[in-house]
Amino acid sequence: MAIDFWFSIGSTYSFLTVMRLRDVSSRVGIPFVWHPFNVRAIMREMGNSPFAGKPAKLDYMWRDIKRRSEGYGIKARLPAPYPIHKLELANAVAAIAAREGWCEAYTVASYKYWFQDGEEPGTEPNLSASIKEAGQLPQEIILRAVGSEGIDALAEATDAAKGLGIFGSPNFVVGGDLFWGDDRLEDAILSHRRQGL
Amino acid sequence: MAIDFWFSIGSTYSFLTVMRLRDVSSRVGIPFVWHPFNVRAIMREMGNSPFAGKPAKLDYMWRDIKRRSEGYGIKARLPAPYPIHKLELANAVAAIAAREGWCEAYTVASYKYWFQDGEEPGTEPNLSASIKEAGQLPQEIILRAVGSEGIDALAEATDAAKGLGIFGSPNFVVGGDLFWGDDRLEDAILSHRRQGL
Repeated sequence: MAIDFWFSIGSTYSFLTVMRLRDVSSRVGIPFVWHPFNVRAIMREMGNSPFAGKPAKLDYMWRDIKRRSEGYGIKARLPAPYPIHKLELANAVAAIAAREGWCEAYTVASYKYWFQDGEEPGTEPNLSASIKEAGQLPQEIILRAVGSEGIDALAEATDAAKGLGIFGSPNFVVGGDLFWGDDRLEDAILSHRRQGL
Repeated sequence: MAIDFWFSIGSTYSFLTVMRLRDVSSRVGIPFVWHPFNVRAIMREMGNSPFAGKPAKLDYMWRDIKRRSEGYGIKARLPAPYPIHKLELANAVAAIAAREGWCEAYTVASYKYWFQDGEEPGTEPNLSASIKEAGQLPQEIILRAVGSEGIDALAEATDAAKGLGIFGSPNFVVGGDLFWGDDRLEDAILSHRRQGL
């Protein structure tokens, strides 16, 4: 059985998972199902703003991501632009992509352009380039994403995330059990093995 | 050289570090210097309330601490009373203890009574029992802690913590580099080795 990977494009720590998940998955022999959702909607509802107005915490976040990406051997130019302006659009595209099998390719490209080239996801030139890299037609996909198809797909995914007790990103769900944070990926894999899934 | 361990009694995740640090320290052969401070004062100043009014996040925290304490083989009766009412007093005692060499014994006892017996730190019967377990006279220590000695010692430690960029608990400081969270203890140790400290 797969591990469910719930994430929002726009989350900084999700960069670490997005960039290493393919390798981890093939090394441990466990498939991951990618589920994009709107973490900002959930955080707004909760009154949860982990970094806004908290410079010491924000500084630490970049320092921590730098150390972790170096530890994983992932290239990054930090700090990346943050917070991003078009989180909804970036994830509406991903929500459509998740239904059609090109979510991983699109998301990896979005993060690569964001964290390595300094271009925000959901915004040009990142948006069209990432859609193209996933083998799709940017104009067509963007029209669907800004319309009811994208809005509804993202809202449904966000409701499902809330139903799982999700409040941040990234997350791993293993047999109903939630693991939050890139630094819990290894725990999620251990739990998957213990449960014999 | 030692690793500096900065913490506040009252922090839930610090339970994991407090209960395993002696073993870790002797296993890796690195001493840790215990520095109690007032994390609540820093959080209030930053407008940072990680769990208040965020039930999904709070539920997850207890679930996560349960899994982690089981993984470490640390006994815990969860959820423990939270938040605690007398954080300042609990840490003012610890700040005096840090100057006199009995901080670790007092803190371990405080957490044991809190997370294993459901008794809040800084409050009776936990407070006197923990001071006694550290070989001190409760009445005398409590009088000093509620007076200017305890208040000043805690304020000085809290200012020093702020100066290090600290915004939560627990923390490890290695050659000026900050690691936040029990789950970064192993990274801090690696960094200590790499820096040849």
